[in-house]
Amino acid sequence: MKLYFSPTSPFVRKCLVTAHELNLVDRLTFLNCSAHPVNRDPSIIVSNPLGKVPTLVTDDGVALYDSRVICEYLNSLGGGTLFPIAGPARWAALAMQSLADGVMDAALLARYETNVRPEALRWNDWTNGQLDKIATSLGHLEAHPELLTPAVHIGNLTLGCALWYLDLRYADLAWRSKYPHVAQWAASFMERPSLKGSWSLPA
Amino acid sequence: MKLYFSPTSPFVRKCLVTAHELNLVDRLTFLNCSAHPVNRDPSIIVSNPLGKVPTLVTDDGVALYDSRVICEYLNSLGGGTLFPIAGPARWAALAMQSLADGVMDAALLARYETNVRPEALRWNDWTNGQLDKIATSLGHLEAHPELLTPAVHIGNLTLGCALWYLDLRYADLAWRSKYPHVAQWAASFMERPSLKGSWSLPA
Repeated sequence: MKLYFSPTSPFVRKCLVTAHELNLVDRLTFLNCSAHPVNRDPSIIVSNPLGKVPTLVTDDGVALYDSRVICEYLNSLGGGTLFPIAGPARWAALAMQSLADGVMDAALLARYETNVRPEALRWNDWTNGQLDKIATSLGHLEAHPELLTPAVHIGNLTLGCALWYLDLRYADLAWRSKYPHVAQWAASFMERPSLKGSWSLPA
Repeated sequence: MKLYFSPTSPFVRKCLVTAHELNLVDRLTFLNCSAHPVNRDPSIIVSNPLGKVPTLVTDDGVALYDSRVICEYLNSLGGGTLFPIAGPARWAALAMQSLADGVMDAALLARYETNVRPEALRWNDWTNGQLDKIATSLGHLEAHPELLTPAVHIGNLTLGCALWYLDLRYADLAWRSKYPHVAQWAASFMERPSLKGSWSLPA
């Protein structure tokens, strides 16, 4: 399988973490590319007309995207249990995935605003709206620690990737001191080999 | 069930179309709200810390989001077949959903740029990047008409909603004349009662 790759994309990392959980990393070939919302990379568009990473091309030549579809495919391929099959466990895992995906989306939009857009055209209210999404989301988890479980499912793996991205790009948010329950969860859950270290970065 | 609602959100429409396909519309109560990326609506945040629509609150009081999770939940509740269970049919439907969701995302981001952001801070390159995502996506379908099937699944329903949104906000794109295969598909598929008309707008 081929994966269009970017080392700093949290959505790519989510796919790599999932592949690692399923012992499928060795079956992935990484395609270098330059996903960008303005200077779009035609090499990605060939497989995914949205031009985004992650995009997976299966051994059958089928292009799959976005990260949710790729992770579910990998889980199916690896015979995993990262997606609870039915009932409340499934909705809880999928809603957590949505929450964490939303945090990553907001963090990326804020990053585009402050690092991609020309300085004269930046709008603080937009950046603050995105950062506030991150704050209310982590605040929600802090206020509902029962949501912070050790279950190894796609929702919690995605949450780990979202927190990894906050550490990478928004260390100044100091989320660990503001959300101690979340920090406590992360201190334990993010010790999983899949979430830890730099294994995900091809040489 | 309660659905946080906005009449012009393509993602809300996707949930309503899905509910209509499953004969579940009558079980929905619509909650008025004002989803906005900058002036965030606290009434939504209570249920969904991302503050986005659509958000569904089930009869058991569980908050589900985003549209993908809500649609899958409705399909499960209604005993539907909108999500192929496994194999190539599932990946095709889910990839089409991702493509159409991506078109809607791009259209919304372009809309925020041209209608929400202060005029002096708008960046044409950003708007053009988003519109180009729409163009390459519809161009991909046009070049692969075998993807344009009459199957009633979540991918095709989402594509119908994306095209509905383009008609609503981007009539000047004239997608029907540029992408005749897509237009031909839409002329037939979008005659489905779920996709047609204004039934989805509560009084």
